[in-house]
Amino acid sequence: MTRTSELDSTGNSAVVGAKNCNVALLGFGTVGSSVARILCERAITHLRLTHVLNRNVARKKVDWLPSLVQWTENIDDVLSSDVDIVVEVMGGLQPTEDWIRRALASGKSVVTANKQLIAHCGPELIDLAQRMKQQIQFGASVAGGVPVISGLHEGLAGDELFKICGILNGTCNYILSQIESNGIPFATALREAQKLGFAEADPTEDIEGLDARAKLAILTRVGLHCNVRPESIVARSIAAIDSVDFEYANQLGCTIRQISWAELRTPELRTPELKTPELKPESNPTSKGDLLFAAVQPALVELSSPLARVEGSQNLVVATGTYGGETVFGGHGAGGNPTAVAVVSDILAVARSKQAGMNYAGQPAEKTPTVTADFTAKHYLRFLVKDRPGIIASLATILSECGINIDSVLQKPNCPKSHLPFLITLEECKASLVEQALQQINSLDFLVQPCLHLPIL
Amino acid sequence: MTRTSELDSTGNSAVVGAKNCNVALLGFGTVGSSVARILCERAITHLRLTHVLNRNVARKKVDWLPSLVQWTENIDDVLSSDVDIVVEVMGGLQPTEDWIRRALASGKSVVTANKQLIAHCGPELIDLAQRMKQQIQFGASVAGGVPVISGLHEGLAGDELFKICGILNGTCNYILSQIESNGIPFATALREAQKLGFAEADPTEDIEGLDARAKLAILTRVGLHCNVRPESIVARSIAAIDSVDFEYANQLGCTIRQISWAELRTPELRTPELKTPELKPESNPTSKGDLLFAAVQPALVELSSPLARVEGSQNLVVATGTYGGETVFGGHGAGGNPTAVAVVSDILAVARSKQAGMNYAGQPAEKTPTVTADFTAKHYLRFLVKDRPGIIASLATILSECGINIDSVLQKPNCPKSHLPFLITLEECKASLVEQALQQINSLDFLVQPCLHLPIL
Repeated sequence: MTRTSELDSTGNSAVVGAKNCNVALLGFGTVGSSVARILCERAITHLRLTHVLNRNVARKKVDWLPSLVQWTENIDDVLSSDVDIVVEVMGGLQPTEDWIRRALASGKSVVTANKQLIAHCGPELIDLAQRMKQQIQFGASVAGGVPVISGLHEGLAGDELFKICGILNGTCNYILSQIESNGIPFATALREAQKLGFAEADPTEDIEGLDARAKLAILTRVGLHCNVRPESIVARSIAAIDSVDFEYANQLGCTIRQISWAELRTPELRTPELKTPELKPESNPTSKGDLLFAAVQPALVELSSPLARVEGSQNLVVATGTYGGETVFGGHGAGGNPTAVAVVSDILAVARSKQAGMNYAGQPAEKTPTVTADFTAKHYLRFLVKDRPGIIASLATILSECGINIDSVLQKPNCPKSHLPFLITLEECKASLVEQALQQINSLDFLVQPCLHLPIL
Repeated sequence: MTRTSELDSTGNSAVVGAKNCNVALLGFGTVGSSVARILCERAITHLRLTHVLNRNVARKKVDWLPSLVQWTENIDDVLSSDVDIVVEVMGGLQPTEDWIRRALASGKSVVTANKQLIAHCGPELIDLAQRMKQQIQFGASVAGGVPVISGLHEGLAGDELFKICGILNGTCNYILSQIESNGIPFATALREAQKLGFAEADPTEDIEGLDARAKLAILTRVGLHCNVRPESIVARSIAAIDSVDFEYANQLGCTIRQISWAELRTPELRTPELKTPELKPESNPTSKGDLLFAAVQPALVELSSPLARVEGSQNLVVATGTYGGETVFGGHGAGGNPTAVAVVSDILAVARSKQAGMNYAGQPAEKTPTVTADFTAKHYLRFLVKDRPGIIASLATILSECGINIDSVLQKPNCPKSHLPFLITLEECKASLVEQALQQINSLDFLVQPCLHLPIL
């Protein structure tokens, strides 16, 4: 880094005596090329793009980048250079992880947009960065351009957050919105989303909640200081949601969204008025430890909630703290440009600290809570049955035997007797109790398909 | 500062080899005591509250602060001590400004929640801080606990923001919400807000938009890098809004909110698709310079907009960037605890940089644009007239002579002839054109009161 007395044109990185930072870009796809474009167009004087790495780099080369940029397929070109910040926007777990480790080990800081990598080995990478007196920033790994990572880490640093919930997967939100507004089946909505580029050819990661739970694991680490592995968070598919569920949800004043939810219950938490799920000792193996309620699942949310109003591929995160109450962050959760904004913001943050010789660590002092998805909530049970007398009676008997109270029964008119959808809502109880009842219920012969069970948040 | 190897219990300020920071609190009112409580309860090991300054300090003293805290009425006790960070939550312009200058000059960093002070002399104080290699942070000065300052400054640093609009005054939002939901007159809503502590005995600052425009000036500086004095921003009162206006607004699919809006139009802005007010050379005296459209005013906003859904005393800010599109920040805009969260977050940020010996400046490299409130928009004109034939004809003639097109005329049924409210909406045109027409219109003898003119955003 060479010291300069210039300030950049944007005022964004205003440290007196700013130093030049050399930046290498690993990956020149949608996000990578947006990052390069922003770095060029905004002419941030103290940041200089020096390397672009991509497979088949000759095919990727563009004419709008300065000629001094070195295009390469070889990571050693980057690692042996005087690059200060390595920006990883290639995705995937390998060779990405190796390369990031090598970059940190060779005294370079790292900015990455890779949610799976950070969800799986974030703490180890942060630890390595600390030992090397470098930084690793990952603001773009969750919710694209929505500055929720910096918001939790800096803006709300003064609070003691205990709950984070949000809509973290634009694909699911888009599909659910389409089922809702056009009354189409799930499969049709998915096909259309794929055609429009809102869903991948293999949509498993999105639909089954695996993408969102990686993001939730990261937010839980940053905001709740809990060390949680993504695999320990329950993820439920949205594939069973049908347009009839939106009709019923609407009758209940709700809509359906894929909700990512993490809520920490610590023994010492100073919030008696807090309405959190009931805790019994038997549900908490390390009974004096922390308990984290966490899941990614389709759920009913009240129409008046900000979560209900998230449209299309937008993302929204609501963070709740002991002192500040609820804070909302919303915006574009994906796309080249919004994600690139998050990447460039991180580059600027790293540059600021590099300039000051600041060694800024990630999230240490973490709790390692027991993770459970056993929320206490009202529940929505939607059945599809071959109609005959006595159905409600058999269902009600099983539910009552499990100690579960029915709240309401709804049935929309004019449905075929052979495929009759109807709804039972339950009073507040534990999800595990409902699952237990459903094991019995799902073997009943009048069911055309297994009961759809959603929490009402 | 003494160096320590401890990390704090929250992980919020995780710098290896963190140093202790001594903190002094100027002001022990609602916000001040919340700040002290958070510092105590959260036990952030590297922050130590050492001084509390207040008038009549004996009366203020509490037993829940550590006994080593020095209570004083004398600023010199603070300035001559080894305090590292002076936290100003007393409010007011004097002696606050002097004390902050003296604190900076004696090598202490400053955290303040004082919007009027920062709006009026923020740049000078930032400049002084820079020269003294200290920091001044003011995250709590806008929107209380909503981390919008850090969001604009850090999280969205990678974008090129050109528009900031939001609801920045909880009192106005509460009063307008009450008029809307209870159909009560403005004066009644104000009285109730005063009774409940949501409005001050002298509500001028809030009602007339002076509070919001100080905040808007700060956001404009931080987010748009424009040096704007609050006085240069037009502020319009909400006092003329009546419940009938909400009925009409609803018929138009809108509601009414006090909206703070700042939008930068630079000659070189690279966004052709941008829907911004039309620019003619004559409206821009320094024709090659930047133009800032800015105002705080009651306005119609579509019911589907996030601004329409802000309830009670909540705050919301929407920042729009060239690359990332719209990003939303929302939460509690006031109150002791939310504001204290913002203050403590700032203290932690200053402590982090102090630990690293980092000299971090505020917002330099600023533009100094021409400021105008002459938005191009649709307009809402609500008349209260003594009915007689020919009223519409006279109004239509004046409007047409000014080159303004009428969009619709609405009149709710069953109103008294002597106080007949009715509505004219106008097609998109400049606000100045409408004001010109209204000068003629307001002298017409059938008007019971001057026409209420609101933009439709």
